[in-house]
Amino acid sequence: MAIKKLAILGSTGSIGRSALEIVRRHPDRFKIAALAAGKNKSLFKRQVEEFKPKVISLSDEKDINEVRRNLSYSPKSHCGDEGLLEVATCDGMDTVVSALVGASGLAPTMAAIRARKDIALANKEVLVMAGGLVMEEARKNKINLLPIDSEHSAIFQSLVGHKREDIKRLILTASGGPFLNMPIKKLSAITPKQALNHPKWKMGKKVTIDSATIMNKGLEVIEAMWLFDMPPEKISVHIHPQSIVHSMVEYIDGSIVAQLGPTDMKGPISYALAYPDKRIDCGIAPLNLCEMDQLTFMEPDEKRFPALRLAYEAIEAGGIMPVVLNAADEVAVEAFLERKIKFTEITKIVESVMEKYQNQKSKTQNPKLNQILEADRWAREAAREIIKQQ
Amino acid sequence: MAIKKLAILGSTGSIGRSALEIVRRHPDRFKIAALAAGKNKSLFKRQVEEFKPKVISLSDEKDINEVRRNLSYSPKSHCGDEGLLEVATCDGMDTVVSALVGASGLAPTMAAIRARKDIALANKEVLVMAGGLVMEEARKNKINLLPIDSEHSAIFQSLVGHKREDIKRLILTASGGPFLNMPIKKLSAITPKQALNHPKWKMGKKVTIDSATIMNKGLEVIEAMWLFDMPPEKISVHIHPQSIVHSMVEYIDGSIVAQLGPTDMKGPISYALAYPDKRIDCGIAPLNLCEMDQLTFMEPDEKRFPALRLAYEAIEAGGIMPVVLNAADEVAVEAFLERKIKFTEITKIVESVMEKYQNQKSKTQNPKLNQILEADRWAREAAREIIKQQ
Repeated sequence: MAIKKLAILGSTGSIGRSALEIVRRHPDRFKIAALAAGKNKSLFKRQVEEFKPKVISLSDEKDINEVRRNLSYSPKSHCGDEGLLEVATCDGMDTVVSALVGASGLAPTMAAIRARKDIALANKEVLVMAGGLVMEEARKNKINLLPIDSEHSAIFQSLVGHKREDIKRLILTASGGPFLNMPIKKLSAITPKQALNHPKWKMGKKVTIDSATIMNKGLEVIEAMWLFDMPPEKISVHIHPQSIVHSMVEYIDGSIVAQLGPTDMKGPISYALAYPDKRIDCGIAPLNLCEMDQLTFMEPDEKRFPALRLAYEAIEAGGIMPVVLNAADEVAVEAFLERKIKFTEITKIVESVMEKYQNQKSKTQNPKLNQILEADRWAREAAREIIKQQ
Repeated sequence: MAIKKLAILGSTGSIGRSALEIVRRHPDRFKIAALAAGKNKSLFKRQVEEFKPKVISLSDEKDINEVRRNLSYSPKSHCGDEGLLEVATCDGMDTVVSALVGASGLAPTMAAIRARKDIALANKEVLVMAGGLVMEEARKNKINLLPIDSEHSAIFQSLVGHKREDIKRLILTASGGPFLNMPIKKLSAITPKQALNHPKWKMGKKVTIDSATIMNKGLEVIEAMWLFDMPPEKISVHIHPQSIVHSMVEYIDGSIVAQLGPTDMKGPISYALAYPDKRIDCGIAPLNLCEMDQLTFMEPDEKRFPALRLAYEAIEAGGIMPVVLNAADEVAVEAFLERKIKFTEITKIVESVMEKYQNQKSKTQNPKLNQILEADRWAREAAREIIKQQ
C-alpha cells in the first residue's frame, strides 16, 4: 500500500483532531500534506510542527503570519477562503478530510473534487446544500466520496458487497439527544449548557445542538439521499438511545444489515481514511455487547422533534429549500448558544424562514453554486431578522 | 437471469418445505429438477405432483414405487442411498438444497460438489463431519457453497464486500433455548415436550433439542470454522435471547457488521437460493425494530451449557473428534426423545464417547471419507453402549 497523503480542512476541530490521532498512530499508512483551520492558532501551530505539512492556512492573515514566523521550517502559507482552496487542491495530495463546520466547507470541497482528490466528508452541509452538484462532480471526476458521519459510514459498511436494487430502505438511527424523555412543555426552558451535554457522543457545538433538536438527523436524511442516491421515502429514522447500532440497511427479503461500534468518531474516520485498503486499528476500546445496556428502538415523536418533519418538507420542496433549512438552522443554533432565543425557537425560526422562502422566492430545482450561496445568504439574513424581532 | 434448477435433499422436512414455498412464489427464478425425501410419502407425492421433478427418490423402494404408480407423469424414480446420489447429481440441475438431517447428507452432498453443483447447505453435519474434505472439493470444483443456517447466512451477509484480513472475529448468536433461565439443578427433569418447545424458531426435532442443550451452537462453531476458514479462537458465541441479530462480524477497527431479520428460515433459504443474483421477497413479515423487545447479549454460561465447551474441545483435538461429537450427540438426542435418558445426560454421553475415543482410537488429522464414516459408526455404537448401561 502506498502512503496516502492527506489534507485536513478543519484540523483543530473535533474531527480534525481525531483524524490527526489516527495519522499519528499509522505513519506507515498516512502523511499530512496540508492543514487548514480557523482561529485556534496555538493548537494549529503545534499540529503544523508535528506533521510538517507543505501547505497551511488559517482564517486570518495575521494569525497565519504569526504561526509561520515561529515555525522550524517554511511551508507555503495562506489565509481565508483562498487558503482553504489552496489546501483543498494542493499537489501531491490524495484525500481531503472535509471537516469544516457549516457552509464554509462547500467551495473548497467542490474545488477538491474538481482537482480529483478523494473526499472523506464530515462536513454534512456540503451535501445538504449542494448534493446534486457535488455528486455530479464526484461522478464526473471519478473520485471516492467517503462519509465520516457515523450513520453514513454505517450505511456504507452495510451496503458494500450488496446490490443496490435489493435495498428496501435505509434506516438511520438517532440517539434522540439529551431531552428524549423530558416532558415536552419543559423543552423551552433548556439552556445551552444542558443542550451541549450529549449523552453519547463528544462532538462540536453546532452538531451537538442539532442532535438535541434532532435537526442533525434531518440533515443526515438529506445527506443520505444524495450520498446513496435514495428517494426520501426509502430513508427512515429510528430513535436508538444507546447509539450502538449506527445505522442499517433493510433489503427486500426482510434481511437487515447493520453496523455497530463504539461511540467514537475515530471509527468512521479511520474507515474513510483507510478505504479501499485494509482497515486500521485506531486504538478504540472494542465494543462488549455482553456488558452493555439492552438495545432499544422507537419511532421518532414528531411533536418532540419537529426538525425531522422540516427536513422531509425541505426535501419534498426540493431545489434550494434544503439550503434554506440549513442556513436558518445555523443562525438559529448560534442565537440559541448566545442565549438570544429559546431552545424550542430554533426549529420555529427554521420553519418561518422556510415559509418566507416558499412565499417570496422563485423556485430553482437544479440550483447552481452561485444560486445556492445566494440562497444561503438570504436565509441567514431572514433568520437574523426574525431573531431580532423576537 | 436464467431460471435456477434445484434439487432438494429432504423435501418433506422443515427446510425442504420452506424452500418449496419460495420456489412456488418465484416460478420465474426457480424450477424443481429433483426431489428426495425419507418416509413421508403422502406429502412427498403432493410435492412431486405440484413441481413435476424429473428425478425423485424416497428411502424405501416400496414407498417410491407406490408414489410412482399414482403419479400423473413418469419421473425417474430411485430409492435409498443410491437414490440420494441420483437426485444430488442429476443432469440439467444447478443447485442442491442439502437439507437432510444428520450424517446421511454427507455422501450425496460430496457427490453433488464433485458433479459441480452449487450447494445451499442446511445440513450442518456435512461440514461438522467432513469440513476439510468438503471445502477442498468445493474449491477444486469452483462451486458456491451457501449456508442456510440463519447464523452462517448472517455471517456471510456481514462479510460480503469486506476484507478477510480485516476480520477480528465472528460472533455467532444463540437464543439460549427454552431453558436459559431455568435453575440449573432442574435441567435434569426436562421432558422432550418441554425441550421441543423452542421460544423463537420452528425447526426440526434434532436441531430443536440441540438448541436446548446449545450443542447446536457448538456444531455451528465447527461449521463456521470450515465455511469461513477461521481458527476457533476467532469465533465467539453470544447468547441473544431475542434471536433478532442472527450473527455478526467484528473487524479490526472495532466496527461490527451484523445481520438482523425475522425468525423465519425462509430468509436465509431465499438468500442462498437467490445468490449471487437479485434477492427475492419471500413473503416474510418485515422486522419492526420499534415494536420489539429490547435486544440483549450475554456470555454463555458454561455450567448450564457444557455442550459448547465440548465442541471447542473437539475442534482442539481436531481430525475425527468432531465426527465423534456429532455422532454421539445424534444418538443421545434420539435416546432423550425416546425418554431413555435425561436431558442433562445428552452432553454427558457425548463427553464419555469423546473420552473413550481419545483413549482408544488412533488419531487422524486429515481423515478421509471412509475413516469419517467408520468413526461415525464407532461413535454411534459407543453412545448406544453407554445408554444401554444407564
